[in-house]
Amino acid sequence: MDDLEDLKYMQVALELARKGAGWVNPNPMVGAVIVRDGIIIGKGYHEKFGGLHAERNALAFCTDSPRNATLYVTLEPCCHYGKTPPCTEAIIRSGIARVVIGTLDPNPIVSGKGVEILRSHNIQVDIGVLEEKCKDLIKIFTHFIANKRPYIVMKYAMTMDGKIATYTNQSRWITGGKARGHVHSNRHIYSSIMVGVNTVINDDPLLTCRLENSKNPIRIICDTNLRTPLTSKIVQTAKEVDTIIVTCEEDTLRHEAYQKAGCKIIVVGRLDNHVNLKELIGVLGNMNIDSVMLEGGSTLNWSALKYHIVDCIHVYIAPKLLGGVSAQSPIGGLGIDDPNHAIKLTEPKITRLGEDLLLESEVIYTCLQES
Amino acid sequence: MDDLEDLKYMQVALELARKGAGWVNPNPMVGAVIVRDGIIIGKGYHEKFGGLHAERNALAFCTDSPRNATLYVTLEPCCHYGKTPPCTEAIIRSGIARVVIGTLDPNPIVSGKGVEILRSHNIQVDIGVLEEKCKDLIKIFTHFIANKRPYIVMKYAMTMDGKIATYTNQSRWITGGKARGHVHSNRHIYSSIMVGVNTVINDDPLLTCRLENSKNPIRIICDTNLRTPLTSKIVQTAKEVDTIIVTCEEDTLRHEAYQKAGCKIIVVGRLDNHVNLKELIGVLGNMNIDSVMLEGGSTLNWSALKYHIVDCIHVYIAPKLLGGVSAQSPIGGLGIDDPNHAIKLTEPKITRLGEDLLLESEVIYTCLQES
Repeated sequence: MDDLEDLKYMQVALELARKGAGWVNPNPMVGAVIVRDGIIIGKGYHEKFGGLHAERNALAFCTDSPRNATLYVTLEPCCHYGKTPPCTEAIIRSGIARVVIGTLDPNPIVSGKGVEILRSHNIQVDIGVLEEKCKDLIKIFTHFIANKRPYIVMKYAMTMDGKIATYTNQSRWITGGKARGHVHSNRHIYSSIMVGVNTVINDDPLLTCRLENSKNPIRIICDTNLRTPLTSKIVQTAKEVDTIIVTCEEDTLRHEAYQKAGCKIIVVGRLDNHVNLKELIGVLGNMNIDSVMLEGGSTLNWSALKYHIVDCIHVYIAPKLLGGVSAQSPIGGLGIDDPNHAIKLTEPKITRLGEDLLLESEVIYTCLQES
Repeated sequence: MDDLEDLKYMQVALELARKGAGWVNPNPMVGAVIVRDGIIIGKGYHEKFGGLHAERNALAFCTDSPRNATLYVTLEPCCHYGKTPPCTEAIIRSGIARVVIGTLDPNPIVSGKGVEILRSHNIQVDIGVLEEKCKDLIKIFTHFIANKRPYIVMKYAMTMDGKIATYTNQSRWITGGKARGHVHSNRHIYSSIMVGVNTVINDDPLLTCRLENSKNPIRIICDTNLRTPLTSKIVQTAKEVDTIIVTCEEDTLRHEAYQKAGCKIIVVGRLDNHVNLKELIGVLGNMNIDSVMLEGGSTLNWSALKYHIVDCIHVYIAPKLLGGVSAQSPIGGLGIDDPNHAIKLTEPKITRLGEDLLLESEVIYTCLQES
């Protein structure tokens, strides 16, 4: 078995893992492949939250005995009792001779323990095949267990002159069909979607995922003074699609109509006359919401940056110009006073989506904190 | 001689041609290579406006007799008397047996005539080797002879949230050193640079090219009411660097101080209370200015788009966020009212410049004209 073989089978495991996208949160996506004598005899992935882990699925679907076979798994097998018994036990019992691991468990408390147990049972363990890809696959999980709060992606679509709407406040559509489809696939992948109440009032969106075989994100509305219209599409569909209204309004009598419609109400404190976003993301973390797609307007976007809750930004850019001194750009609020104090981003990853571009960068907060 | 050989030598001719960038306007860049028995015996390019054409330079620098050799030239040889006698004559006299041409002369009146003359003298002529690259090389020339007005590039640098300055109106610097160096190399390549008077008043820029072995662009200031400060760096250096002030101010007494300082004054009509840009570019075309790098603020940028004078846009994007509801975005004015009437651009060409990106698109005006 040479390195190229290892890469090939780990690549298969990665592709399997991605099938769990959207269904396993807040668990990580994991894929596993069992190979003997150059033949794949078992494949599996973590299919949904609470279900079997990838390794157990691969073992369950083996077409031949896994004895002396090699197991490829994108993430270190678990060695603790969670919703399912430890995978290390199943691996040892199966007679597998070698385990190839993409990346170690990112949880520092258990990282390496699975490897140790396997090795103590004379199983050969190799670590780090396609490691960067395997790490990237569990980026949200790694962030969530390290910070106990969701990974937050700020998303917006703008023209090549930085406008998210015309001066008449029309934004349908800035980008083309392929870019909008990409947004929907992210609504499936991320656990929740967050907007400000003004977006609900102005656009009356559904914020669901309109792809086949997909799940809807939990819809979160930041609504300081509880102004969400009871007639809005979101409230009207709150019995079918999880909906959270975050407010500073403490009068429970005012909550009732929303609750009857199926909405969950979360009351948080006030900060700068808005819902306290820092408090909110702690609450969302406690609710096991591992990720948020922030599709806010420019005001909410600025607040989210100001309070350092944004981890990543997705900028869809359309090859169009709108002009207009009063046309909105993606991030409003007061803003930064000096270019040297700008919020820095990592070099963007670029994806072409039809005629549009997607730039993805992570936020580097040091500069803002220094200023 | 196979196709690969042809590609190889045309590539050399293209690289030679590019050495003329910035020096030959409004002529096209042209490169030529003479090859005999697989050895390059002559190389040349059009070095500066009024100087020898590429073919004649290549012949002049031949290290061996060009008899029966092949000439590679990026553009069809000329057959008319201009500032120099026709190149076809020199080629015929030299005894060259074959001429390989990148692209035909874009001027429909003479296109193909050079080829005809060569063929009528029993010279083998092949056309279209690396044609797209050869056409791209003379894009400005092609535009200039077809339209009799300069090719206009709108350039701006913005953050990933579409800001060209902070809310305190500071813009130094949005992009990093590599992107700013790229701007300077374009100041060498393009014949002129245009800004609005407010840029001069607010930033007091020099607008020169600060690269070695480079030329400065002609500086053009759009100054409707002649408010350019006589103390500005541009006026103070107008004796060393060509400077044009375009104004609606007809009082020649008010022109004198600028003229004494070395500035040229062009008076044009008024349109929407600004200098008439459509009239202006006609005047610039008559002055043999083949290209303009428009580094205007957001107001001038909008006017230029509104009057359809922009051919191409260069957007430098820095991986930074500034926020700010009052921070300027690149294109101001009234703007477009409906996303469906947006000014369309071609799919951007993407270049990474350090951590920054450059997106280059051409403007497609049909939609705006329909609206």
